[in-house]
Amino acid sequence: MSVRTPDHPEWTPEEPQGPGSRPVPNANPAWLSDLELAEIRGRLPILYVEAVPVRVDGVGVVTDVGVLLRANQVGEITRTLVSGRVMYGETVRDALFRHLEKDLGPMAFPLLPASPVPVTVAEYFPMPGLSAYTDARQHAVSLVFVVPVTGTCEPRQDALEVTWMTPEEAVSPSVQADMEGGRGALLRTALAAVGRLP
Amino acid sequence: MSVRTPDHPEWTPEEPQGPGSRPVPNANPAWLSDLELAEIRGRLPILYVEAVPVRVDGVGVVTDVGVLLRANQVGEITRTLVSGRVMYGETVRDALFRHLEKDLGPMAFPLLPASPVPVTVAEYFPMPGLSAYTDARQHAVSLVFVVPVTGTCEPRQDALEVTWMTPEEAVSPSVQADMEGGRGALLRTALAAVGRLP
Amino acid sequence: MSVRTPDHPEWTPEEPQGPGSRPVPNANPAWLSDLELAEIRGRLPILYVEAVPVRVDGVGVVTDVGVLLRANQVGEITRTLVSGRVMYGETVRDALFRHLEKDLGPMAFPLLPASPVPVTVAEYFPMPGLSAYTDARQHAVSLVFVVPVTGTCEPRQDALEVTWMTPEEAVSPSVQADMEGGRGALLRTALAAVGRLP
Amino acid sequence: MSVRTPDHPEWTPEEPQGPGSRPVPNANPAWLSDLELAEIRGRLPILYVEAVPVRVDGVGVVTDVGVLLRANQVGEITRTLVSGRVMYGETVRDALFRHLEKDLGPMAFPLLPASPVPVTVAEYFPMPGLSAYTDARQHAVSLVFVVPVTGTCEPRQDALEVTWMTPEEAVSPSVQADMEGGRGALLRTALAAVGRLP
Repeated sequence: MSVRTPDHPEWTPEEPQGPGSRPVPNANPAWLSDLELAEIRGRLPILYVEAVPVRVDGVGVVTDVGVLLRANQVGEITRTLVSGRVMYGETVRDALFRHLEKDLGPMAFPLLPASPVPVTVAEYFPMPGLSAYTDARQHAVSLVFVVPVTGTCEPRQDALEVTWMTPEEAVSPSVQADMEGGRGALLRTALAAVGRLP
Repeated sequence: MSVRTPDHPEWTPEEPQGPGSRPVPNANPAWLSDLELAEIRGRLPILYVEAVPVRVDGVGVVTDVGVLLRANQVGEITRTLVSGRVMYGETVRDALFRHLEKDLGPMAFPLLPASPVPVTVAEYFPMPGLSAYTDARQHAVSLVFVVPVTGTCEPRQDALEVTWMTPEEAVSPSVQADMEGGRGALLRTALAAVGRLP
Repeated sequence: MSVRTPDHPEWTPEEPQGPGSRPVPNANPAWLSDLELAEIRGRLPILYVEAVPVRVDGVGVVTDVGVLLRANQVGEITRTLVSGRVMYGETVRDALFRHLEKDLGPMAFPLLPASPVPVTVAEYFPMPGLSAYTDARQHAVSLVFVVPVTGTCEPRQDALEVTWMTPEEAVSPSVQADMEGGRGALLRTALAAVGRLP
Repeated sequence: MSVRTPDHPEWTPEEPQGPGSRPVPNANPAWLSDLELAEIRGRLPILYVEAVPVRVDGVGVVTDVGVLLRANQVGEITRTLVSGRVMYGETVRDALFRHLEKDLGPMAFPLLPASPVPVTVAEYFPMPGLSAYTDARQHAVSLVFVVPVTGTCEPRQDALEVTWMTPEEAVSPSVQADMEGGRGALLRTALAAVGRLP
């Protein structure tokens, strides 16, 4: 089974022209072809951002978390988080915004945190044992943020659905079992960071 | 000169009935008279919350900070932050929301952070030298948060005005000189926490 | 059953003269008698510090956590964390050091974190439902730190024993069930903050 | 003038065999030649770690910070922080330890933090204006940690000297003017994170 960090083809020509897209350097010759990226993935750690979308109440308490339903490489349905690469010339915030929009749609209205410090740093290795997180394709280092969203989510691209669930539901064995590469632990770590670990 | 932590008479009968006030336990016999509070202030550290109100751009970058203009005990005009006590039976979040509303008005629409962890902890002592912060009246320990506000601020009570300024203006010598009790350093520390220290 | 935040009689004459004790203001008239403290506990939130003692490997990864075994008010054996009040005139760091020494002995050699920001803030209420943490005696707000210790722990006072366990053991149902007032969730939250939630 | 993120030739054969070196995957075919690295630097953000070495007192308060004196590309003497790339297959902690040893020598005995969360994330761009930090060579994203060191520092490689200074000295205009690429602001941000911004 191929466990992978979702990494949508963000270098396709369509993406930067999408409606409401942030001013990332489009048509950038620095961007990588699939082949080049595959080559580099075996040579360098790749920088990612991940987001746990949440709903909050009037005083900021997290009431629900959004988990993506997605088909993985071998056609299995799995649960995952908003995730993607930081591109050359792009700020971490712009990458975070771009991937939130890609996975939640243009009407999600995410409120990115004022602080640049992630709630945790997740290190994915192709070889198990080095950390709690694995990614068969690459060595990825991911800055993980909890992001309140205030609008309506309608997943685009390969995410089938966004499921909103309480923290209690999110840590249930059945949901945790559907999360690949250690993301069940990552989701619980993010809940702990916002004081909502059941 | 009396340097003091702003601590508005939150136990006055008017306050809990104010429009839009959060459901704090009103008419609570546990609340303290001025005399009792003065007595306790010499015996125990008092828990405070402080907030640095900010404006953020579309990806969460802080563009402006809100500083309060207020007359202190001896009639001098000083600059300060949103601040106040946590009361018996009140959560830190509810206290933060209540003081934001008290100092910025009911239309400020603050977005309290999802995380309960403050950007810093400021310890105020009546005696100098123990920490960077002083308060002639008491030993206070303050949980400090950076809070984006999205609405219109119109100060109530003894705050005369909310001044919005860029991070560069906020760290200017003239603004810093108007901040009492070490709050100039506190404001810079909060800016650093959001990656915006000039 | 009385669930309480451990709050050892830190105002007893013996304590400040203990070997290696930090220079806390001893014989301070500001300190409280038991009766006065009981009275104030129903009027104000009381500030606490809590510590999760840990062992770390050569690059800082937490390998073990120290959990205290203690008899509670009704003679039951329970598991808990290092914990205690911050006293008038005492810094948070000094309080943390004092309680670590009180609970782990003078040879524990704790390495207090350079940052004043706690890993989480735990709010204990006498009434359930307001937060994840309860304390029958009082409204307490606790700044929680993870503290590596490098020496030998020999509990003093009413702690019977320090048990070192792996993160996996610490989150096991049997250990979690022995922790009162929500401290099982608190311990897991602290493990998450250091990237070690199993 | 070439402003650059110090990036010592960590792929030289000598380095991994150095005394006391951590078990990084040596002789790794995944490592990059100078030419390959130069090529990739224009295509992907490169992941770095940076460390602000500090001395702390008995309760963890930072008393001094260590700043490196180093000759830059054009022979000017500049001040900088401990810094370097995270390599393929290497954890962030191992990279941090390796660069601390490289810049401070094998007897520095750094105490890496238990938390994987950096005090800030610094984004370096070749083009000014995108962030507070610039690096003429590349787009680098750096996880910044404050690391207490307990031993003796004797710089190796191209660092000429480690200078210990108080927080007050570190923020003085003359020291700040010697720091390239925005690292003066980075050092102040790190001081703020440990509650020691003057």
